[in-house]
Amino acid sequence: MAKIIVLGAGVMGSAFAQLLADTGNQVFLVGTHLDQDIIDSVRADGTHPKLKVKLPENVRAFSYTQLEDIVDQHVRLIVFGVNSAGVDWAVARIGPLLKPQVPILMLTKGLAVQGHSLKILPQAVKEGLTQYGLSGIPLAAVGGPCIAGELAARRQSSVVIACPDTALLEWLLNLVDAPYYHARGSTDLMGVEVCAALKNFYTLAVGYASGQLEQRGKAPNGALMHNLAAGLFTQALAEIHYFVKILGGQIDSVFGLAGAGDLYVTCQAGRNGRMGKLLGTGLLYREAKSKHMPDDTIEGAELALVIGRTLKQLIDKGAIAQKAVPLTESIVEAVCDNQPLLIPWDRFYSKSKT
Amino acid sequence: MAKIIVLGAGVMGSAFAQLLADTGNQVFLVGTHLDQDIIDSVRADGTHPKLKVKLPENVRAFSYTQLEDIVDQHVRLIVFGVNSAGVDWAVARIGPLLKPQVPILMLTKGLAVQGHSLKILPQAVKEGLTQYGLSGIPLAAVGGPCIAGELAARRQSSVVIACPDTALLEWLLNLVDAPYYHARGSTDLMGVEVCAALKNFYTLAVGYASGQLEQRGKAPNGALMHNLAAGLFTQALAEIHYFVKILGGQIDSVFGLAGAGDLYVTCQAGRNGRMGKLLGTGLLYREAKSKHMPDDTIEGAELALVIGRTLKQLIDKGAIAQKAVPLTESIVEAVCDNQPLLIPWDRFYSKSKT
Repeated sequence: MAKIIVLGAGVMGSAFAQLLADTGNQVFLVGTHLDQDIIDSVRADGTHPKLKVKLPENVRAFSYTQLEDIVDQHVRLIVFGVNSAGVDWAVARIGPLLKPQVPILMLTKGLAVQGHSLKILPQAVKEGLTQYGLSGIPLAAVGGPCIAGELAARRQSSVVIACPDTALLEWLLNLVDAPYYHARGSTDLMGVEVCAALKNFYTLAVGYASGQLEQRGKAPNGALMHNLAAGLFTQALAEIHYFVKILGGQIDSVFGLAGAGDLYVTCQAGRNGRMGKLLGTGLLYREAKSKHMPDDTIEGAELALVIGRTLKQLIDKGAIAQKAVPLTESIVEAVCDNQPLLIPWDRFYSKSKT
Repeated sequence: MAKIIVLGAGVMGSAFAQLLADTGNQVFLVGTHLDQDIIDSVRADGTHPKLKVKLPENVRAFSYTQLEDIVDQHVRLIVFGVNSAGVDWAVARIGPLLKPQVPILMLTKGLAVQGHSLKILPQAVKEGLTQYGLSGIPLAAVGGPCIAGELAARRQSSVVIACPDTALLEWLLNLVDAPYYHARGSTDLMGVEVCAALKNFYTLAVGYASGQLEQRGKAPNGALMHNLAAGLFTQALAEIHYFVKILGGQIDSVFGLAGAGDLYVTCQAGRNGRMGKLLGTGLLYREAKSKHMPDDTIEGAELALVIGRTLKQLIDKGAIAQKAVPLTESIVEAVCDNQPLLIPWDRFYSKSKT
């Protein structure tokens, strides 16, 4: 039984906390300043109000203000379950308290910009922790198709755990070995994290097909628009592959659970697909957001806003091959410049595509 | 304007005939003995009764008994649109009439067994044609996510045309260059055809998730089973990759339109997914077929019946690595041996997987 702290009591952090409890660990679920209602509810009777499940008794809930009291020498693992905007906050909370060599497992997905380059969140965390004199913290991440509500319901889920340190990887795989949780190991932290971050972004484009269908309706012969969605899905995978390649990840991650698998599940359900659908009806991003999804975090759009300007600069400099990322450019223009989402078919299939 | 013969007036052959007509060709749509009702209807007023569209005037319909009258020196291309069981029949019809050097474009998907090995249908056609003294017939094939009804409704579709002869490939890409049809070229005939054949087979497994969901219902917290479907989708892609690799195809095909794209679309709709769903509820294959889909051709199950025994032999001999194909084995056992479809999770993630 390991003592584990999960930082962030949103749906994924909490569902993962339950998994860790199911596999026999003592879990300290720590809410951020946004999670106080959740923490209060879990404390009262175990119920997580968003996941709509009763968490096991060996998940105990705390506020981030109590972190100092619970981070001690017995902690074996820190799990980051905050959202991507909360990573710096989490580093600032945990940095002063963390013992050297305690690994961090990232559930948080996203990319960060540093200077004129993109980096994965584990890199950002690693660099952030150096401010606290922590230079050797091992980092790992979870990728793959895992909707939090289904994990919370203990429904069969397949994931990939990425960690360059194979001994730690083995330990993590054993740590989460539950009958409903099928974890594969990978040492390709870069590839897994790039895939995990980008799937939300490209789901905006795959969702476009649903919007087009809503706008134009069934064809007189009853035909829908699955071909359109599948074409966009494939182009998304090709562009994810391009980014993984230039950032130094491995192709296996792209068409494994982290890439194809997670893109698949993200296209079947969720907020990014809903936003894509709105864009597919012809709405502009800002109108779609403010009128239809004002209170939702659209991770793919948030990512576009974080990396859009840098992407354009990298394309202008030739560091990213423009011909390799036509769909990426369309999504960035739709979200960052509030332009109609256009599908640049003629640019998808140039034979000299990198 | 090229004179083109499309052999087989089912949904895909006929939708493709319309595409060829739209791009300015003179199309002779030739029905098999199973297509006479279709041919009569198209002749009467252009209506294809299954596609529920009116075909353009430059698609003219014929019976196979008239082949002799229409195959002449002006024919520039033969398109095979028959189903996989009809390939030998089509070779026997066209073999005695075909002029040397007239290429054949395959829409028909499947694998054939020769001795103890698997081959793609273009290989089978090529070998079959040698009986008629035709040794140099160029062969090409269409893969990728393209539901026939959507193509017939002229909805955006993305495909890959595979042909080892790059000059012919270029000609074919130009031949089908319509605003709603986005064709990419590939020289990897083997990879594209293996992907195209196997996507139906593995969709039986991805459909299992829908059946499980129907049987077990939503979780109390509302959770569905998208994670399960995505895990199976990814495993399917991994096993397709294995087969493409050992048969000499290229990985690009696997996670391009022919592989990931076509598997995606096949999982969204269609008969293979419906059968998979029935298996996912716990029904055995024979009962599911006879009670629920007696009149449907389930291409993935048909393929299992054609190649199942050979697959088992190849696994026994070690020519196929058993650890690389756990899902394949489960599907073969479900269809060929009428066993319950089981998902062998523990076999998916062995780290030494080939």
